[in-house]
Amino acid sequence: MAKRAIPDIVIGRLPVYLRALNFLVAEGRQVTSSQELGDRLGISSAQIRKDLSHFGEFGKQGTGYDIAFLRQQLSEILKVNRMWDVALVGAGNLGKAIADYPGFVGKGFNIIAIFDNDPAKIGQIMGINHVTVQPVEELERTLRERGIVVGIIATPAEHAQAIARTMVEGGVKAILNYAPITIMVPPGVHVQYIDPVVGLQRMTYYLA
Amino acid sequence: MAKRAIPDIVIGRLPVYLRALNFLVAEGRQVTSSQELGDRLGISSAQIRKDLSHFGEFGKQGTGYDIAFLRQQLSEILKVNRMWDVALVGAGNLGKAIADYPGFVGKGFNIIAIFDNDPAKIGQIMGINHVTVQPVEELERTLRERGIVVGIIATPAEHAQAIARTMVEGGVKAILNYAPITIMVPPGVHVQYIDPVVGLQRMTYYLA
Repeated sequence: MAKRAIPDIVIGRLPVYLRALNFLVAEGRQVTSSQELGDRLGISSAQIRKDLSHFGEFGKQGTGYDIAFLRQQLSEILKVNRMWDVALVGAGNLGKAIADYPGFVGKGFNIIAIFDNDPAKIGQIMGINHVTVQPVEELERTLRERGIVVGIIATPAEHAQAIARTMVEGGVKAILNYAPITIMVPPGVHVQYIDPVVGLQRMTYYLA
Repeated sequence: MAKRAIPDIVIGRLPVYLRALNFLVAEGRQVTSSQELGDRLGISSAQIRKDLSHFGEFGKQGTGYDIAFLRQQLSEILKVNRMWDVALVGAGNLGKAIADYPGFVGKGFNIIAIFDNDPAKIGQIMGINHVTVQPVEELERTLRERGIVVGIIATPAEHAQAIARTMVEGGVKAILNYAPITIMVPPGVHVQYIDPVVGLQRMTYYLA
């Protein structure tokens, strides 16, 4: 199947479906439906069926989806049925919270290197993986040596573009950016933003 | 104009457009085009024009968009041309990072109350607004007294649902949830999730 045929907006919904399936598994459930998933996510069941149909047949008419099977299939499609090593830059409060975040476990991501430019933070041991914070000067070399292609930026806005550039020079292909600034990357490098303002602003529209 | 006619997915893109416009203003720019916005955001120019056409005529054929005007219009549509008071629950590393976040300034949100259940944190002064952390037992009363309708949850997952319930009882209508768990709220209450896993997983799909 030609990957190019699948819109990015569909790809963007698959992790949301996967998250909902993980919650259903945690609740001890084994079978679900596009209707139930849609109700939980605020997405129409028709949209969910259409999105999943890009990748094959996952459910049987009238019996719904086998949660474990669909979860495994989505993990494979998203390539998170393996572990991606991640480099985190920024070891302030935000960086610490990310390093401690329990939600990465079993979702395909493992923070194995942390960097900061503050001498007081360098050498600290941080996060659920007990990673020693390295000086940011070692970022590019470490990325190369350890073959890391996924990076998280949790620095102040004024450092984010320079860090992104170094990440790309070190071989990073996917950057999750928490800094409140748009970063420029060459073609073939992906950026996603974590921006609480976007989440809040899309809700105030509905408030009286 | 009937609000119900505008799909939620369109509303969800407006804050992203607004953010891009803010960056253009910061760069000293005065006019832009759907093409330029689209290139920056990875969204087609046709999509942007279609989204904006729900709300009226913002650009002139051949001359593009007046950035200041479009920014003001989008702020009005999203109701962020005013200040929303926000209550934050959770004063750990993540809560501290949110309270310190410089990106809320001028975007319509102001964290005016912070709550935690840890006696060591209660009484601390936190964030850019120098807010004193209150015991979580005071959450509902404070929400009512101060008329707060926007809440941010930055607690561990196991507390998130109970906090959401208390927020709703206190009158909150919009919740931004950082905890890695789906929370249930009654109809009329909006929830958005900040989930780094979703951002990362939608990028790994494209990695070799």
